This record gives sequence, C-alpha cells and structure tokens, in this order.
Amino acid sequence: MNNRILANAIRFLSIDAVNKANSGHPGAPMGMADIATILWREFLKHNPKNPNWFNRDRFVLSNGHGSMLLYSLLHLSGYKLSIEDIKNFRQINSLTPGHPECDITDGVETTTGPLGQGLANAVGMAIAEKNLAGEYNKVGHELIDHHTYVFAGDGCLMEGVSHEACSLAGTLKLNKLIMFYDMNSISIDGNINGWFTEDVPGRFKSYGWNVIKNVNGHDFVNIRNAIKSAKHEKSKPTIICCKTVIGYGSPKYQGTNAAHGAPIGPDEADIVRKRLGWKNKPFIIPQEIYKSWDATVKGVKLEGHWDKKLEKYKKLYKKDYQELRRRIKNQVPSRVISSLDKCMLKNHKPMATRKSSQVVMTSFGQNMPELIGGSADLKGSNLSYYDDMSIFSPNNPAGKYIHYGVREFGMSAISNGIHLHGAMRPFASTFLIFSEYTKNAIRMSSLMKLPIIYIFTHDSIGLGEDGPTHQAVEQISSLRLVPDLDVWRPADTQETAAAWKHALLNQGRPSAFALTRQTLNELPKTKTQSTNMNKGGYIIYGKSNSPDGIILASGSEVSLAVKAAQELGDKKLDIRVVSMPCQELFDRQPASYKNKCIPKDFDNILAVEAAKGDSWYKYIGKKGSMITVETFGLSGTGNDVMKHFGFTVNNVKKEIKKLINKNR
Amino acid sequence: MNNRILANAIRFLSIDAVNKANSGHPGAPMGMADIATILWREFLKHNPKNPNWFNRDRFVLSNGHGSMLLYSLLHLSGYKLSIEDIKNFRQINSLTPGHPECDITDGVETTTGPLGQGLANAVGMAIAEKNLAGEYNKVGHELIDHHTYVFAGDGCLMEGVSHEACSLAGTLKLNKLIMFYDMNSISIDGNINGWFTEDVPGRFKSYGWNVIKNVNGHDFVNIRNAIKSAKHEKSKPTIICCKTVIGYGSPKYQGTNAAHGAPIGPDEADIVRKRLGWKNKPFIIPQEIYKSWDATVKGVKLEGHWDKKLEKYKKLYKKDYQELRRRIKNQVPSRVISSLDKCMLKNHKPMATRKSSQVVMTSFGQNMPELIGGSADLKGSNLSYYDDMSIFSPNNPAGKYIHYGVREFGMSAISNGIHLHGAMRPFASTFLIFSEYTKNAIRMSSLMKLPIIYIFTHDSIGLGEDGPTHQAVEQISSLRLVPDLDVWRPADTQETAAAWKHALLNQGRPSAFALTRQTLNELPKTKTQSTNMNKGGYIIYGKSNSPDGIILASGSEVSLAVKAAQELGDKKLDIRVVSMPCQELFDRQPASYKNKCIPKDFDNILAVEAAKGDSWYKYIGKKGSMITVETFGLSGTGNDVMKHFGFTVNNVKKEIKKLINKNR
Repeated sequence: MNNRILANAIRFLSIDAVNKANSGHPGAPMGMADIATILWREFLKHNPKNPNWFNRDRFVLSNGHGSMLLYSLLHLSGYKLSIEDIKNFRQINSLTPGHPECDITDGVETTTGPLGQGLANAVGMAIAEKNLAGEYNKVGHELIDHHTYVFAGDGCLMEGVSHEACSLAGTLKLNKLIMFYDMNSISIDGNINGWFTEDVPGRFKSYGWNVIKNVNGHDFVNIRNAIKSAKHEKSKPTIICCKTVIGYGSPKYQGTNAAHGAPIGPDEADIVRKRLGWKNKPFIIPQEIYKSWDATVKGVKLEGHWDKKLEKYKKLYKKDYQELRRRIKNQVPSRVISSLDKCMLKNHKPMATRKSSQVVMTSFGQNMPELIGGSADLKGSNLSYYDDMSIFSPNNPAGKYIHYGVREFGMSAISNGIHLHGAMRPFASTFLIFSEYTKNAIRMSSLMKLPIIYIFTHDSIGLGEDGPTHQAVEQISSLRLVPDLDVWRPADTQETAAAWKHALLNQGRPSAFALTRQTLNELPKTKTQSTNMNKGGYIIYGKSNSPDGIILASGSEVSLAVKAAQELGDKKLDIRVVSMPCQELFDRQPASYKNKCIPKDFDNILAVEAAKGDSWYKYIGKKGSMITVETFGLSGTGNDVMKHFGFTVNNVKKEIKKLINKNR
Repeated sequence: MNNRILANAIRFLSIDAVNKANSGHPGAPMGMADIATILWREFLKHNPKNPNWFNRDRFVLSNGHGSMLLYSLLHLSGYKLSIEDIKNFRQINSLTPGHPECDITDGVETTTGPLGQGLANAVGMAIAEKNLAGEYNKVGHELIDHHTYVFAGDGCLMEGVSHEACSLAGTLKLNKLIMFYDMNSISIDGNINGWFTEDVPGRFKSYGWNVIKNVNGHDFVNIRNAIKSAKHEKSKPTIICCKTVIGYGSPKYQGTNAAHGAPIGPDEADIVRKRLGWKNKPFIIPQEIYKSWDATVKGVKLEGHWDKKLEKYKKLYKKDYQELRRRIKNQVPSRVISSLDKCMLKNHKPMATRKSSQVVMTSFGQNMPELIGGSADLKGSNLSYYDDMSIFSPNNPAGKYIHYGVREFGMSAISNGIHLHGAMRPFASTFLIFSEYTKNAIRMSSLMKLPIIYIFTHDSIGLGEDGPTHQAVEQISSLRLVPDLDVWRPADTQETAAAWKHALLNQGRPSAFALTRQTLNELPKTKTQSTNMNKGGYIIYGKSNSPDGIILASGSEVSLAVKAAQELGDKKLDIRVVSMPCQELFDRQPASYKNKCIPKDFDNILAVEAAKGDSWYKYIGKKGSMITVETFGLSGTGNDVMKHFGFTVNNVKKEIKKLINKNR
C-alpha cells in the first residue's frame, strides 16, 4: 500500500485524538508521519506482541509532546493500544497520557516531554547495547545487536542536555544510535530564525557524528536511503537532518507555530481530509490500512529467529547465558547481598563516607557486572568506582566505568536510558551541590520508577575551602522532596553499606546518597541497632524509655550528637540520639516502630544536620528546635566552617539543654 | 618590563597562596598567566580605584576554581586587595574565598565556580552592553562602549549551559564578547581524550562565532594579535582558542591533572622558582613589578575621559542622562510603584494569575526601560511581556523582550549576567516544572544577591492534560528552600501585583512567582487585608479571634479554602483562612503579627496547596493536617486532576472537620 496513505493514518489519528481531547500537539505527528512510516514499517525490528523482547530496536520520541505520533504507531502496528485508548487521549487514567509514559503504555520505551532528555536516554540505550554486546556477544553469536532510533526537534537541540549527551556519544563512537532531526524551523514562539540559527549539521560534525544532510522528510525514497546509509556506519552515531513541514497537510496551520500545541479543530480537519484524500471518519481506519501496518506477524518471526540464536548460545555459553538472564530479570546476585551484609557488620576504621562507599563497592563490584556508571569528571573525589573497574570506551566496550566528563545532566539522563534498556544497574556521581545541574533527570528516574543510584559526595559545608558555590545547603531537603526517591545520608561505613543494599534491592525507586568529604568515626552498634539501621532511622544512643530529650541527626552530625549525649549523660541528663540515614525509609515503617524512636507528642526534640532544616519540621513539631544551616556556606577550613555554623559538641549540648528548659 | 616576569608574578602568588592555604587550584593560574598578562595590561579598560566605573570592560573567570589568577590580577593591578588578603586565601571571612564571589571582593564581576555559568553570565553582560548602547548611545556620543572578556576551560565547554548561552550569543551577534578558551587538554579526571573529543572550533563556527584557532597561550605576540583581531570583529562573538600547559613551569605537575586542584607543595615551588628564574620569596613581589602592573593611573585617566564624554552627553541629552543615572542607582521609578499600588487595589475580573502578571507588567512596563527579559520559548504561555514590548535582536538592540529559545539554564545564568552589568532589571520565565533545568542559576542569583525575577507559570497539577512531566509538584517547596529567595504564589491579580511590587523593590534578593494556567477568581479585600497582603500572609476570611480551625492556603487553593470556610460558617463552624502568597516575607514579619494570623500553640491548622506539602509543617505542627500532592501528577483535564487529588470544597470541609474532631 501507498506509503502516503499509511502515513496519513498517523496524521488523522493524531488530528482526531487531539481534536477530541481538545488538547494536544498535532503539528509534530503531522510533520514526522512520513519519516515514522518508513522507519517503523521497513526498518524497526520489534515485536508488538512482546514489547519487552530484549533485542528489539529501541525507539525514542524525544519531542514527547508529539505523543500521538507514537500512540498512532503503536496502535497501527498491533501493540496493546486500542482505538478506544486513542479516543481517551489525555483523559485521566488512560493509556494515552499527554506525554508518553513508559510505565503506563506498552511499547513506550521512555517517558518524554522535558525536552532534550529523550535524546540523552537514547544515548544511554546505545551505551547499554554496546556494553552488553561487548560483554556477551561471541564471534558468530551476536546476541545483542540492535539499533536505537530517536526523533528530536529543534527544542531538544536547543537544550544544553543535548550538547552534553551528543558530544559524549560522538566520543564513545555509538554507531548504532540514529537520530532523526525534525528540521521544521518552528518552535513554540514561531520561526526559529530569531533564536536558533546555529548550523546543526556543522555542530554534530564537530561532535564526531555522521551527518546526513538535506533529507526531504516527506520524500520516502530520500528517507529510506538515509536510514540505509546510517545503518552502514561503523564508528559514528548518525544524525539524519530531515526538512519537514510542521502540521503537514493543513492549509491554515502548516509551517507555523499555530500547528504546534493546539487542536486544529473539526473544520480544518475536514479541509485536511479533502486535501490529503482521506475519506474516513474520525477514528476509522480501513482494514487494509491496518493490515499493511500490522507488524505482529513479522515481529513474532523476528523474535523467533532470535530465540533460536539464544538457544544455540545457551548451549555453548551456559554461564554467560544464565548471567544475562539473571540481569534481564533484575535479580541482585546473592553473593552481592552477602558482601553487603558483611560490610554492615564489620568494624571499619574511620573514613569519609565517600571512601566508605568505595569500600562497599569494592566488596561486591566485581560480582555485579550489571553495575555500570561513572562520575561527571570527579572520579578521584567521588570515589564511585571499585578496584580494577575497567573503563568503558570504543576500544573496551565491555568496560564498566564511564568517564562522563563535566556533564551532570547528560550523565543522569543517560543513566536513565541505560537502565531503561535493561540488564543494567547504572549509577551516577558528582558533588551534591551539582545535583542541581541534573535535578529534572533525577525526577525523571523517580517518575519512571528507575532504581538509578546517585552518589553525591562533598555533602555539606564540611567540605570546607571550596566555599558556598560548592557547599550543599538546601540540596538534601530538596532531594527529599522528590516523590519516590530514597535519600541516604549515612553516618559511617556500616550505614553506607545499608544504603547500598537498599538501593540495590530497590527495584521501583531511585536512591541518592549524600556522602562526606571529611573523615567520620565508625559508630559501634548492638545487634539490634545493626538490624534497625535497615529501617532508615534507629536509636543509636540511649537506653531509657523516657529520655529528657531526643536528638535527631544524620551523616556527619550523628557522632557529634552521640558525643553531646554522652557528656550530658555524665551530668544526669538523659538524651536519646536517633540516627536517621534515610527519612523516606523510616517514614515507611509501622507507626509502632516510629513511635518507639520518636514518641508521638514528645516535645524536646532537637534536629542536627549540616543542611537547611526544612525536612525536619515534621519530626520536631512546633516545640522542637534545630541546629542547621539556614544561609549559604562559607569558604574556610572544614573545621572552621562547621564551628562557625554551630556544629560543635558544646553547642549541641547547649541547644538541647535550652530546649528542655524552654518546654519545662 | 618583560611580560614573562609579569606573568610569573601571577604564577608565584598563586602557587604560594595555594601552598599556604594547603588547598586550591594552581594549575589554571599557572597556565593562563601569560594570556591574562597581555589582556589585563594591554587591553582591559578598567579603573582599580573605581571597580564600579560603569563603562569598564567586564572580565569573567568562568573557570572560577582558578580564583588565584583573578586575585593576583586584582592585587597587582591596584585593586583593594592586599598581600595580606592573598595570604588569607581560602580562610574564613577573608576577601579571597576559594571561588571568586562578587559580593565579597571588589573587582570580581561575578561569582563563579559552578562550571559554564560564568560564560553565560558573560553573554548576559554583553547583551546588557548592546542593549544599553542601543538605547542610550547617540552618534558621536558612544557612552556605553566596552567589551566583555571571559576565560573558560574545557570543563565550562562540556557543560550544557555553555551550549545554550553560546548558541544564543551567536544568533544575537554579540561581537563585543571575547572568550579565551584555555585548551590545556586536561580536566580533573586526566587528559580529556577519553571524554571530550569534540572539535570546539568547529562547534563555535556552527554557532556563528568568529573563531581564532591555534593561538599559543604562552606566546605574547600571538595572544596580542588574536585580541586585536577579535576587537575588530563587527558582527560575531569571538572565541580565541589558546593552547596552554596547565601548571606551566612545574616539571612534576605541568600538563597533568595533578596540577589542577591541589597545592604543588614548597619543594616543587622551589624547583619552579629556579626553572622560571623567580628569585623572590613567597608573597614578595619586587616594587618594579608592582609598578609595571599598576593600572591605577591609567584607570583614573580612562574613567576621566569617559566622565568628560558623560558631561557632554548630559548637556545634550539630559533626560536620557537622568534616566541612565537612575537605572545605574537601581532606583525604581515612582510612577511604576504607583501603577502597582493601583493594581493592588483595582477590582480585576477573574483570570489566570499568569494573565494577571501580564496585566500588571502592562501597567508599568513602558515606564521601566530597565525591565528586560523573556521566556524559554513559551512566550504565549508564560505571558511574561507587556503590550508593545519590542524584541531584542541584532537589528533592534534596544529591544526589551529576549527570545531565549528552549534554553532555561542559559536564560537564567544570562539574566544573572545582565543584572551584574548594571542598570538592568532582568526577568526570566518558563513553566514552573522547568525551574529544575535551571535550579543552580536561581541559587546563584540568591548567592550573588541579584534581584532577578523568575516568572514560573503552569504552577501545579491544575495545568491538566500535559501530565506529570509538566506538572510541578515538589518545585514550590524546593524553591522555598533556596536561601534568600522570595517565592510568591499569588491567589489573584491583586496579590500578583503585590508580588511584582515586592520583587521590584527587593534589591538584594531574587523572587520567583508561581502562577496558574487556569482562571482564578478575584478575592474581595478590606483595606486592612489589602495592606496585610504586603506581609506575605494575611487573614483573608474570618473575623473571630478564636476560630475553630484555620486553613492556610496559597494561589489557586485560596478561593477553594474561602468557599469551604463560608459553607462551614453557615453551619456554625468558625473557620479562618490565611492566604499565604509568600512564606518568606511572612516569616520576616514580627512575631506579634504572625501570631495574630496563626496563633502559637493553635492545633487545628489545615494547609491546602496543590503541591508537595513539606514547607507547611513549620506552620501546622504535628497536630495539623494537609491537603497536598504527595505523588506525581496525572494527565487529564485540570478539573479532573484537581478533583482526583482532593482539591474540592467538599474535601476541604471534610478534612478540617476531621481535624477539629481529632484534636478535640
């Protein structure tokens, strides 16, 4: 069947769904329908009957507002997405939300909408593919062998994250990454000539990409040849620059920003119908069009071929096969868990918790090949690697450590993509303050329920001389605000091991660690304390059931609090200290346990944390008090700065005594 | 005097200060000393005796870790920075903190350290210069006429924000912006060939920059010729690509990442002394070197010339002169204040608060030429412009609206630069959710005490169909965490006018507005209420001094709360509603006022805000309760989503009754 007709099926599903919802973005689907038709029907290796087939090509719609393009493709190809679902576009609890969400709709590879990040996700997927191929493929047994295709528009390419991800993709020679750049010259504010005049092909050439210029995005032969050529590329990612018309087919809106983000309305839809020769009513797709689009038979066959390959592989490389299978199922090896359990009990010497994290990683890293990640150019500072961790590079595609360069946002969005690919457990690291450079990618990890591990070191004013630009103050509380993110601020190596264990066992939520630059003492723990450490918060000091006061603390402030409590104990003041390495995990405990640590209606509660204190109000109530950092930090030695802000044993003693007197 | 000797003065001040502090970054100052010597001694137009001389060239050290380079330059040139200050490098409360801070040290134009942002600040300064020149210069009276120079390293150029800012700089043809790219091929993790292989000259060519390649950063003639050539450029910003050796002069460390961020130590310092022929002890600079470096006489003369120009200008263009003077002093015109006062009292029709903001801007915009800003490609959505606001462009340099393109981080860091230049009041706008793309630049506004106005619209799940990727949930609480940032979430047009008034009158802190997409009713107010609106929180409903319950609400939830209170009033339940458009401003009120609104020890407090609730705990205590959004949002109509999360009059009534019963 004529490709134009097949593409028009996408156009009209999109027009009609947006019209029905009275909300949405018809312009991109209308403009990119022709490209999508060629790619999906002639090249994309996928199986609508099994959206999770491991060796499928990945497809990312980075310009996620064009969601109806993707929903149309899924519906037409035979995925579990009915015409009723299409009619429910943008309605509450539908399978067709305003932007594509990968945990809602089968066949959606990643949640997109925040511009540029889909592109970075695709880079991550291509890294995962290259890494797995490097590790598991054998000569004649290319088990992992697929492409990652991504659609991106001008909006994506204006975003800084596109620079970070694409520059790195060039360095890493991700030749199986193919981007379609939708050059429609329009963004929301109008024709881009007032704000986006860069020579995009030249820019990608400078990144070391294979650049295919001047493709007419409405010419099927042109598109087909470009994809063929891109697939032949052996050492570079490819950008196919496709000139398209936004809102293609609508005399009133095409080529203008009016086509971007609003329904074209039923009258204009009728005009487009006439113009494009589409005789079908809204949401009616003739059977022959469905038949031409149907990819289920081909898909089952493709997966079947691969299954046979897999069978052969299984026989020859049983151990590799089993390991890959385990990884695809996201099973954490039991030997990793037992290493972590040991770390949680061992009596470690004093060290910075960033170092603790490295000790912990080293205890299990070699046993967990799915652990992959790196740092944004702070390897020696973040210490987020284990001994002998090899470097991922074009010459060593099986390497596990990624030198991300100074690209925090790119790193995190790439990590999301690596995990989305499957069989991978990515981590990402930088200074805690620079979590701000990548804030929305962390949120996207949470929204997509991806258990990314964020290792943030240099977690407070305690880092010292680098000063306020580098000292985290409000970042811990800020991370605690992200729904479904576990934020750990461990007090010693044992708590750091607990953080790692929970992070690895978490399958549906990311974790962020806030780790010190400065050395911390190991806190001795009873067996009960070691157990309760796994509850996010626990009594680290004090045995009485009716203490005079309670100090809540995390990370570097726990030993300070314990020392203050000990000294006050000598003076007959009974102070309990609760170490709270993870508020979110503590909050998920039964009320009975929480009450044992922090009795309801107890007044004399002092929170001590070298950070902005907002996240402690819920525990201390209006009668409690805090020693926190409510302003920006200061440049000076770590000790001087800590002292300046009141983080001394004497000040903690003074404040808890003051509090007890006040509430007396 | 020999330039090499003059440059070595920088090198040794840097080596010795870092050694003494036992902390810091000697590599960049040692590598860029030669470039800095030529630029500062032969080209930079500045007056050390008056660091605020308005027409000085701006100099930005985007690689801020190299702070000792800048401190050395300031000290040697004759700024108020003594050798004692240099010896106090990185000590608490010194004038020489670890990274340069513009509110601490005279002559530091911007606070840098977070990589890439200094570069974007410089783009902002160049925009400000072009804009002011466009507005105030007359033929033969080029009052505003200076360059902006910026040093940047590989780290800055890897960051996404460098892409956003530099791509825009090319489009805007900022020819008086000159960047020195320190091509030392080293970043913290080592030689960049593993993570940064892009062709930077090619990349900047694609941005439309004038690229001067292959400059030897240790060859004075080379450097001089490059700067001369760059200054002749009439339509493009210039990048001068300088090949340098990090840690130049140290046999042990030069050319390696070991030179980057740690003292070289006294022994190696001695070796460098011998090698470079520097015979002076630490912190000893011979008088003849000071004399050669001294820029004070030249500086006073330069400013004197400009003062004469200014005198002539004053006579011919008195009104312009006065206006510019007013702007330089940061005085808000009284006619602007009176427009805002009127807006605060007028009875407006119902509208979305994003529209309210536009109505308010239109009331005073034409009277405030220093107001400049734009949106990250969401002009029609953010509505952050006033009627007839002209577009800033190469052909209309006096324009006030900046089409930033989809570049949130670049926009905000550029806004910081625009304000730092002086005589400007920048604003920046995008969807509230995308405040996350630019989080650290907002923090930098606060840290630098710059009263930038952030206009964030589409402030909650109330935006509807675009779904969870676009619905702000935790962002309001997160912004409230930033020290010294005023976060406004107004409930109607009058409160929006109050937000604008306070934002404009704030001179030492930024403001962020969270504005709705959806229509809100105007709340009728008594005179007292209209006055108290200026206190950040005030009783909007309820007259009794002993209410049964208190509802705290902001923005779109205030009218909901008032309606619930009214209906409960009919049933003899006495509910007070406190509208809280700005928690920070409320918190700064005297305790007596705060107690009048929210009595201390009052239990029955319900907070209602369509956002994550954490920032309300401090008001409600452990006995209060909340109707908030604790998970991610949902795609659906705004009404459906609001209802789903419990934002209905009935649910508010139910919850406050439940609370009163619980605490009974």
